[in-house]
Amino acid sequence: MATSESEAWTAAERSVRERVPPLLTDLYQFTMAYAYWRAGRHNEPAVFELFFRNNPFAGGFSLFAGLNDCLLFLKSYHLSDQDVEYLRSVLPSDTDPAFFSYLRGLDCSSVSIRSVPEGTVVFAMVPVLEVSGPLAVVQLLETTLLCLVNYASLVCSNAARFRLAAGPRRRLVEMGLRRAQGPDGGLTASRYTHIGGFDMTSNVLAGRLFGIPVAGTMAHSYVTSFSSLEEVWPQTLVPLGGRDPVDLISLVKGWLGNVCQLLGAESGRVREGELAAFLSYAVAYPNNFLPVIDSYNVSCSGLLCFCAVALALCELGYQPVGVRLDSGDLCRQSVEVRHVFQKCSNHFSVPGFQSLIIVGSNSMSEQSLAELSKKDNEIDVVGVGTHLVTCTRQPSLGCVYKLVEVRGRPRMKLSEDPDKSTLPGRKAVYRLLDSDGHPFLDLISLADEPAPEAGVSLQCHSLEQAQIELSVTPAQVTTLRMEVFSCGQLTLPLSGVPQSRAYAQMSLQSLPACHKRLQGPEAYTVALSKRLHSLISDITRGNSKGSNFMLPN
Amino acid sequence: MATSESEAWTAAERSVRERVPPLLTDLYQFTMAYAYWRAGRHNEPAVFELFFRNNPFAGGFSLFAGLNDCLLFLKSYHLSDQDVEYLRSVLPSDTDPAFFSYLRGLDCSSVSIRSVPEGTVVFAMVPVLEVSGPLAVVQLLETTLLCLVNYASLVCSNAARFRLAAGPRRRLVEMGLRRAQGPDGGLTASRYTHIGGFDMTSNVLAGRLFGIPVAGTMAHSYVTSFSSLEEVWPQTLVPLGGRDPVDLISLVKGWLGNVCQLLGAESGRVREGELAAFLSYAVAYPNNFLPVIDSYNVSCSGLLCFCAVALALCELGYQPVGVRLDSGDLCRQSVEVRHVFQKCSNHFSVPGFQSLIIVGSNSMSEQSLAELSKKDNEIDVVGVGTHLVTCTRQPSLGCVYKLVEVRGRPRMKLSEDPDKSTLPGRKAVYRLLDSDGHPFLDLISLADEPAPEAGVSLQCHSLEQAQIELSVTPAQVTTLRMEVFSCGQLTLPLSGVPQSRAYAQMSLQSLPACHKRLQGPEAYTVALSKRLHSLISDITRGNSKGSNFMLPN
Repeated sequence: MATSESEAWTAAERSVRERVPPLLTDLYQFTMAYAYWRAGRHNEPAVFELFFRNNPFAGGFSLFAGLNDCLLFLKSYHLSDQDVEYLRSVLPSDTDPAFFSYLRGLDCSSVSIRSVPEGTVVFAMVPVLEVSGPLAVVQLLETTLLCLVNYASLVCSNAARFRLAAGPRRRLVEMGLRRAQGPDGGLTASRYTHIGGFDMTSNVLAGRLFGIPVAGTMAHSYVTSFSSLEEVWPQTLVPLGGRDPVDLISLVKGWLGNVCQLLGAESGRVREGELAAFLSYAVAYPNNFLPVIDSYNVSCSGLLCFCAVALALCELGYQPVGVRLDSGDLCRQSVEVRHVFQKCSNHFSVPGFQSLIIVGSNSMSEQSLAELSKKDNEIDVVGVGTHLVTCTRQPSLGCVYKLVEVRGRPRMKLSEDPDKSTLPGRKAVYRLLDSDGHPFLDLISLADEPAPEAGVSLQCHSLEQAQIELSVTPAQVTTLRMEVFSCGQLTLPLSGVPQSRAYAQMSLQSLPACHKRLQGPEAYTVALSKRLHSLISDITRGNSKGSNFMLPN
Repeated sequence: MATSESEAWTAAERSVRERVPPLLTDLYQFTMAYAYWRAGRHNEPAVFELFFRNNPFAGGFSLFAGLNDCLLFLKSYHLSDQDVEYLRSVLPSDTDPAFFSYLRGLDCSSVSIRSVPEGTVVFAMVPVLEVSGPLAVVQLLETTLLCLVNYASLVCSNAARFRLAAGPRRRLVEMGLRRAQGPDGGLTASRYTHIGGFDMTSNVLAGRLFGIPVAGTMAHSYVTSFSSLEEVWPQTLVPLGGRDPVDLISLVKGWLGNVCQLLGAESGRVREGELAAFLSYAVAYPNNFLPVIDSYNVSCSGLLCFCAVALALCELGYQPVGVRLDSGDLCRQSVEVRHVFQKCSNHFSVPGFQSLIIVGSNSMSEQSLAELSKKDNEIDVVGVGTHLVTCTRQPSLGCVYKLVEVRGRPRMKLSEDPDKSTLPGRKAVYRLLDSDGHPFLDLISLADEPAPEAGVSLQCHSLEQAQIELSVTPAQVTTLRMEVFSCGQLTLPLSGVPQSRAYAQMSLQSLPACHKRLQGPEAYTVALSKRLHSLISDITRGNSKGSNFMLPN
């Protein structure tokens, strides 16, 4: 892809996402910022990490997404006079007025971000994003960053699962706009499902902004808007490469008779309105004829109308595209439709009928896609809406944003619920690969530890069962995160949607199949370095010995 | 509320929603528009209806919402040169170039909307929105209108159920931004959950744009950012109405000793960092002290720290607000916390401890709210996030947009699946009330039928079981829909969020309790007029007799 195209997308994207206003956050971020400011702590260097505690959909992996949106948000972060005036009206009246001047001058020029690249396969508990900078500023970013990463990663991961369920061959079209959480939810869904593995979207704006191929032909309302052949206009079509218009209606009527005879169908049950709709559409788009054929009855009307019009188009030199099925048992119907296509192709010697495609769309879920891969069917393209964009099986990803270091000192949340504890300290994250280039372990270590080396054995602790010490020898070591934002500037170009998609598919490709199983995947190993493990033990022991506690008076 | 305020909100809203671009739709809307245009049918007068087929969450009702967004979208509808150029690049290359000039000139100046008011209680199958105008234009609006109504109505209805589950007394705070489908999903959720019955939101932008009260104090990261009392600064506080700063740390240490003694608690288990965090926050906001007390251990640390700081504040003349519990068994903990508040109030003669509030927030669902109403607990305010905004139980509402009339002739989709059939013709919808002013039946009739009259008996057919003829005498009749958009202009002022909220609550209030039961509600009766029922029979019989069909040749 040319750089100029990539830049064009990025510019379009920017115009959408730079609008994310800094007030799109929880009020408590501002009350906490004030308390830090009041205590003179607002500029203390602090480090937060963003991660999620469980892979979504009871799966073995997730895809990380939403980074570009985060970076654009940070880059333009500032509060306007109106924002600050509004905050003055909702924060307690005893808030020191000087705090509002401080807010007015805020930006992210002292914030740095280290991140996993957009589209990377990631695992629960691995910190995907590290945000460092002045305590009050990085605290203020929490809710918005979570909002931008949570749904993007969730829907991207969902799309990857749908792709795994569908297999690599079948083409997938996202068409969930009408069921998403409003316009932006729909746009986000289109973008990240493409990165996760969908081929096309029905969302025109997503096509324009992100360069995603768009698809779509007709809906039932088009079919039901016709009732008679008199509504077809023009009633003629010029053959491809020809000059003289042919009476298409007579031609189609003739073909309909032939088709009914071939199939032993009753022409009396064919809907005139449906035939009129198909004819009218074929006149408009003779080279893009792909009607929805289940408005009334597939076998008795829709399929017969399609064949008649498509055979006429073939006779005039055009190539019809195919049909869409949108209700009922898609597998069974697709087999019947393909059978009829074959019969017509053979009987009428029309080779164009060999390459017709069948599109299926009827509240497809991950499960129904997986069933499709097992049952006999002839569906080439699947349209997916509701279950994809709303992530019905798990409609939210529990990303969290936790403080891990202040003034160079590690911080840890020691919850009574061990699942809610955090990993202290500023870290480095490495992905260890085996000799086939497949990742087999993610190592979380402290930032100042030496990196693991290829071919050198290392000891570490399983995160799941900390008492288990592991000894591993990577054939290759990659650093999972890189600096993407520093001193208020992007340090790498934003990756366009096609690049992120390619990266995600490559990342998924290299992950061993056992972790990609949709049901009962093998857990991927995430491990802690010995030093990080010791730090956690020290802090936790400190807790039980009470050394970190006080006695009053 | 003053008109000027209402206008201010509307202006702010407008700045957000007028951005919904006309390309935010499915591609097939444009391909169908082209086919209509090509056939010269694009200006045929057409009527579409928007409705949903099932009340969400297996409930007995829904709230209708999203109207303002639809109207603002329609009002500013036009395609820019860039939009049209993009369409030219994705529509088939044989599209007539004159179509793009037609698109460039499109607007909604010939579109009219009749609608149920924002926030109205509505029922499955009742057409809430009627969109009439030139066929191609009203077809083009489909996806965007569905997108704007679907989630708004769903989350508004969900909020109403949460409110019913919580009972009228408890205050509800929406705090779902980080789990919504991106920024706009979050904003939409805040707005419509307030209309549905929530009292406050944590979303600052929603507060600014829609005038919703905002709430929020501190998160765990604030607490964990402190480790020692040395980090507290300033360490003094001026008593309310006084002049000389008091050493707050000594004062609080003294109170902590007293509290530990009173409760028989070990002061050695109190976290110094937690105490420091509370102290620091209290210095910043002595009149708004409401910390989260479960960062480590409620009984052994958080609650003791709170009491010590709050008692010191009371001694200095301030009124602390309360505490937030964010994990574990909220009911049990709230009872324990209230007990300690009482004990402190009595023992230390501090009346301020009588009015402390307890906020609970820990992935609250409709069910856990309902349980709260049954179990012993002392929770005054509930914060709800994930389950509210993602509508976990049913993350999408299946609104559809169906053609019911073209050129004055009724249209009906006759599906093999009777649940997917539509009701033909342009309609009027009446709500019949009993003598107590409670609605008991929604009547769908043809637009040109006379309206039902109060005190006059009428015959109609149950929509559920068409063979059942009903005879009813309403004490009062209201017209459910009104014209809200005509000739490209709003015909009524947009209602602000507070008005819509008041309207929704009134509408819910008047609905009999049996339909509002969260489990197993009684079905509300939706009925068809005798004439509409006959029309459906005629069209369906026409179908079986084949009169609407063709014989080829």
